[in-house]
Amino acid sequence: MRPLETPPLELPPLSVEGRIERVRAVTEKYGADSLLVTDLTNIRWCSGFCGSAGVLLISKDSTLLVTDHRYRDQVEDQLKAAGSEAQVCITSDWLETVAETLNDSAVLALEADRITWGDQRRLCDALKAELVPTVGVIGELRSVKDQAELVRIETAANIVDAVLSECRSQFVPGTSERQLARMLEDGMRAAGADGPAYETIVAAGANAALPHGKASDRCLASGDLLVIDAGALVDGYRSDMTRTFFIGTPDDQAVAIYELVTRAQEAGLAAIAAGVETGQIDKACRDLITKEGYGEAFTHSTGHGIGLDIHELPALRRDNTATLSVGQVVTVEPGIYLSGYGGVRVEDTVLVTQDGCRPLTKYPKESECQ
Amino acid sequence: MRPLETPPLELPPLSVEGRIERVRAVTEKYGADSLLVTDLTNIRWCSGFCGSAGVLLISKDSTLLVTDHRYRDQVEDQLKAAGSEAQVCITSDWLETVAETLNDSAVLALEADRITWGDQRRLCDALKAELVPTVGVIGELRSVKDQAELVRIETAANIVDAVLSECRSQFVPGTSERQLARMLEDGMRAAGADGPAYETIVAAGANAALPHGKASDRCLASGDLLVIDAGALVDGYRSDMTRTFFIGTPDDQAVAIYELVTRAQEAGLAAIAAGVETGQIDKACRDLITKEGYGEAFTHSTGHGIGLDIHELPALRRDNTATLSVGQVVTVEPGIYLSGYGGVRVEDTVLVTQDGCRPLTKYPKESECQ
Repeated sequence: MRPLETPPLELPPLSVEGRIERVRAVTEKYGADSLLVTDLTNIRWCSGFCGSAGVLLISKDSTLLVTDHRYRDQVEDQLKAAGSEAQVCITSDWLETVAETLNDSAVLALEADRITWGDQRRLCDALKAELVPTVGVIGELRSVKDQAELVRIETAANIVDAVLSECRSQFVPGTSERQLARMLEDGMRAAGADGPAYETIVAAGANAALPHGKASDRCLASGDLLVIDAGALVDGYRSDMTRTFFIGTPDDQAVAIYELVTRAQEAGLAAIAAGVETGQIDKACRDLITKEGYGEAFTHSTGHGIGLDIHELPALRRDNTATLSVGQVVTVEPGIYLSGYGGVRVEDTVLVTQDGCRPLTKYPKESECQ
Repeated sequence: MRPLETPPLELPPLSVEGRIERVRAVTEKYGADSLLVTDLTNIRWCSGFCGSAGVLLISKDSTLLVTDHRYRDQVEDQLKAAGSEAQVCITSDWLETVAETLNDSAVLALEADRITWGDQRRLCDALKAELVPTVGVIGELRSVKDQAELVRIETAANIVDAVLSECRSQFVPGTSERQLARMLEDGMRAAGADGPAYETIVAAGANAALPHGKASDRCLASGDLLVIDAGALVDGYRSDMTRTFFIGTPDDQAVAIYELVTRAQEAGLAAIAAGVETGQIDKACRDLITKEGYGEAFTHSTGHGIGLDIHELPALRRDNTATLSVGQVVTVEPGIYLSGYGGVRVEDTVLVTQDGCRPLTKYPKESECQ
């Protein structure tokens, strides 16, 4: 085997500057003195630390990152690189450290959906502090991306656009789903991505009726609908795109649902702008599909925020009244899934702007309908 | 790009038969009628379902898998393939389904370290049932592997052994950590693995002092210690192995800590047998390293169970009094990490037997000391 010659990507540095202050401001609204951050991705966003274990205690006048001895050297380097001013404590017992640090009278906010019941119970036993559940404190802040984050997401999106173009000639009868998935993921790495943003979905024929189908050894066959859902990972940030292709000549139903999903996705994209309720994007897609009688076959919500996590805030789902903000990055991905027959999904990752949105994934959609 | 020609691996089928009954027996010991399984890997082990969302409600007379519409088709296929007799409910509101299914007077066990505080609070509001925290109910059962699981772990281990042999000639000055990591992971996929079991660690020179160092663009240099920690993923199951190599001629300290860690790892392996306390394995390794004055530099615990998760029960850590059982698969991985200088770790994945253990990872250790 030969070493591979992919040069590292050129990316502007990430900085966490100012983030802790914004977290503090939201924490105060809950009447809490401190927030214990237990979600590792939130810890990364707040501090730059990328380890697999740790907690971040954000108090009024100080920030303390607690992790174990495995990260003794790495943590200081990562905090410094990200411009974090958090203090560091290396310990094998984070709970004891948190208990020693907190004032007895403290009101401690927890990330209710990011801490286990077990840890909440242990904190309850060890602390005199009142524990307050919070939801989405950091998640909402994270949903608006800064320039360095956007560059990473767009770089990931560009890589997948290019890899799909390179591999397009192999979307032919005889190639297996698994081969295609590997080809796409190898292509992402060869282009400088750290890997796929999630397990690449390649689902053909009847498998295309599975929105989260695992690439199998089934080979493409003429007449198949082929759903490819692929994203890349670049320095922690993710892209997400789905295209549906015709293998050989599609039947009338395939053409009809393809055109319907494409129209629905365009309607969803057209509905996006700062200030619009996220539920309205779902409604724009879903109403069109429902009107044509396929409402039951659109089995998931319309989209999600994306960044360090593949699924983050905001959720573009039915009746969500949260409004979109400039700088959020979201997916729009309606689909129709017919058991035993196949399915269609079309998805882009887009940046929310004042008056609309700017697609970050740009692989053409028209070309599939030859 | 050309499609890749890796044939699928031949693996015996997995079966979940009998597992639910064993879970029920442990649940009863907690005085509970039902267990709500919220850990997705535990759900997979109990039922064969591999989706990204769902809960499994194991009651005295029935088992109910609750998931959302994305898995409408996939869930039935996966349950059938695994021999699960669970009923399925497709819903967008699992909590409502659980509430409707449970008897008002039920005592419901939760996986305290695998359910969020938020979900526990929602259950508390929605149910009249008493909620009981449990720890490790399924984790302990999962720690003992059956034959089909062992085949997968050993296949993963064999793949990494072979890939290391193939790539060994590239462990030379000028190759970067990142290139080596990619080469190893590409090799695993080419050999039929689904990918790496975790992000491959390639840490050379001063980076080898970081137990969880991320492969960087630093190139190997003569005199480096090179730590490679690599595992493969085969049909959900994982292997885990670390070897330390000398690049060029090592200095005396490198040779000394290499020999010490190797001796400590052998002592740990020699201490393994059914019935032995897991803390004794840690002690066997740690005592040797401490005696030579490097106790502070062995910054993590000695090992962990491995299977569907990279870290599962049992924990081979200081003072753990849980005893080993035949059929458990564990790692033994002492290390010494010297800030700014480098480090050594040597690790195997082994099967616990009645009188000792059988290594599943077999790449030679002697060859590094040329």
